[in-house]
Amino acid sequence: MLFDPTTLTYNDAGLIPAIAQDATTGEVLMMAWMNAQAVEQTLATGKVTYWSRSRQEFWIKGATSGHTQELVDFRVDCDRDCLLVTVNQTGAACHTGRRTCFYTQVEDGKELEIMAPMRDI
Amino acid sequence: MLFDPTTLTYNDAGLIPAIAQDATTGEVLMMAWMNAQAVEQTLATGKVTYWSRSRQEFWIKGATSGHTQELVDFRVDCDRDCLLVTVNQTGAACHTGRRTCFYTQVEDGKELEIMAPMRDI
Repeated sequence: MLFDPTTLTYNDAGLIPAIAQDATTGEVLMMAWMNAQAVEQTLATGKVTYWSRSRQEFWIKGATSGHTQELVDFRVDCDRDCLLVTVNQTGAACHTGRRTCFYTQVEDGKELEIMAPMRDI
Repeated sequence: MLFDPTTLTYNDAGLIPAIAQDATTGEVLMMAWMNAQAVEQTLATGKVTYWSRSRQEFWIKGATSGHTQELVDFRVDCDRDCLLVTVNQTGAACHTGRRTCFYTQVEDGKELEIMAPMRDI
């Protein structure tokens, strides 16, 4: 079946959540948002492209930081309202310089940062 | 630092997206939503609990299907607006009977179902 980005289910702001997973390690790196055009661009270019809600503009991941995400695999979920992109991640996925955004662990009622920023950034 | 679920960033509906990842395989299983009480219950009980947007009620994953998610690890992202729960998944995570909700692959402009429902459901 031909894939049509307009058949996905977007929220009221026209966005769909996209989870990025490291193709090598399986680590979940981040979650950000795409609109239909960002979905199209991601598939057309192979460079994962989000929609920045804060800046209200396309966000080609790594365009300024160099921490690009090269698309390996693109999945749609059962309800067509969430995406999973498997990527080759260069450097840190997180704007804090950490490999993943999910560096805060909650255990026994406490939260703990379990990951330091990468050195090469 | 003590963890307080009210310090997370929820959307206008009071919800935060939660990504469930298989503790054994690293597979991303699903994405659903939690409110502050669902976060509390998940941590208190060790049974992953979402908020069902369609039914407007707590959704203890597997309570009716038996396809439970036992919490292994709970993470908060850098912006405190997304959660990652690592789980021991019993059976299918997806309501379609598939192990994961992300069974539709998009490649070369086409979409393809790459996974069959599990037999034991």
